[in-house]
Amino acid sequence: MNNKPTIFTSLTPALLHLYDLNNAVVVIIDVFRATSTIATALYNGASRVIPVAAVEECKRIGSETAGAITAGERDGKVIEGLQYGNSPAEYYREFIEGKTLVLTTTNGTKLLHMALAKGAAKVITGSFVNLSSVCSYLVEQNKNIILGCSGWKDRFNLEDTLFAGSVITNIKQHFTVHCDSSLMAETMYLQHRNNLHDFIRHTTHYHRLAAYGLHKDLAYCVTIDVADVLPVYHNESLIVNC
Amino acid sequence: MNNKPTIFTSLTPALLHLYDLNNAVVVIIDVFRATSTIATALYNGASRVIPVAAVEECKRIGSETAGAITAGERDGKVIEGLQYGNSPAEYYREFIEGKTLVLTTTNGTKLLHMALAKGAAKVITGSFVNLSSVCSYLVEQNKNIILGCSGWKDRFNLEDTLFAGSVITNIKQHFTVHCDSSLMAETMYLQHRNNLHDFIRHTTHYHRLAAYGLHKDLAYCVTIDVADVLPVYHNESLIVNC
Repeated sequence: MNNKPTIFTSLTPALLHLYDLNNAVVVIIDVFRATSTIATALYNGASRVIPVAAVEECKRIGSETAGAITAGERDGKVIEGLQYGNSPAEYYREFIEGKTLVLTTTNGTKLLHMALAKGAAKVITGSFVNLSSVCSYLVEQNKNIILGCSGWKDRFNLEDTLFAGSVITNIKQHFTVHCDSSLMAETMYLQHRNNLHDFIRHTTHYHRLAAYGLHKDLAYCVTIDVADVLPVYHNESLIVNC
Repeated sequence: MNNKPTIFTSLTPALLHLYDLNNAVVVIIDVFRATSTIATALYNGASRVIPVAAVEECKRIGSETAGAITAGERDGKVIEGLQYGNSPAEYYREFIEGKTLVLTTTNGTKLLHMALAKGAAKVITGSFVNLSSVCSYLVEQNKNIILGCSGWKDRFNLEDTLFAGSVITNIKQHFTVHCDSSLMAETMYLQHRNNLHDFIRHTTHYHRLAAYGLHKDLAYCVTIDVADVLPVYHNESLIVNC
């Protein structure tokens, strides 16, 4: 009898309802760029990141919170009324250390709130920039895992799937994987792990963001372990797991 | 300016609403086993296949239609009150020629009716067994295409995705493909085209059906062009396109 906990991959938020999140750890994945930016801000000393869905909520929390900065983009530009954008490059240590980042994103934040509503035991965020921390945490927790890809407006995307595949590749010996989405993600990652930077240029999201001149951001977001902390959701904030 | 029609891949019925089906050709894909069985019955001379969702409807249409046989399985067994199962091997020429097959399936039929409700111009069915006919028809129609994977209870599955990938590989020069699902499907197919029979053994659906002793069926369903006709939906039936 196999008593290892399971791994399932939800390829878009529109599929999350198919999985049992009770007592599971859910990994929110939004490689371009929310979960890369969240890891980077925390790695560089932000005291916490508050992810919010709506722009007005972002402004309100920003105005009520000491040492907060508000951030969010739509179509590659900082949203009117907010202070900063979604680029991980904006959140270097000298700027973000000790501050609270109130971040509004579309796909990733939506998924995070869905996971909480569906009874996840723990919600963490992951991207290539903090791959090792994510993997260590998941093995240590020894619970069922849902790898939740944020996708793009409920559509499948490749960059989130490839990250799911990288997690599976690293930890599958400790888990039961009986899920075609996970098998596909792992297969795609194994095929492209040595040319991630090139392969990612073929994706629709890369084209969308590269059109705004964000090539450097995108290359950073698929670079492994350059912001290797583990953001854990606690009291409406993402903080570094200690 | 690129005026080629587009190809999008809907990985499960739960994602179909994200795509514009107006004036598009929708390919219903249910490799294990509905669309393999449909092609086989028509290839062997069935006059038509009537796909229905509910068992009671299957019985009713069967009893009202001269020369009809009713078919459907749940959990690998013929459904009580129906005559035959979902295996393509049951529909050899000496048995099915000239008859109407009233077939109830879960995933594929549901998707077909969704596509019709959403305004598809044409609905056809595809599997590896009729790959060439599907590809020729799509190129000839020169319309936007939605490759609709039936999945398993709204979950992603690999066998349908691999078939979508085989279609894309064969016809993409005539179309615009700007869709991560399609890129993934094509990549997976190109990686496994020479070991389809082996790779497919790793999928969840293979395990489910192989447990019922259906190995031969499953090998047949991934064999290219062994029942190479084109089923087109017309007047509530699938008939061979002439």
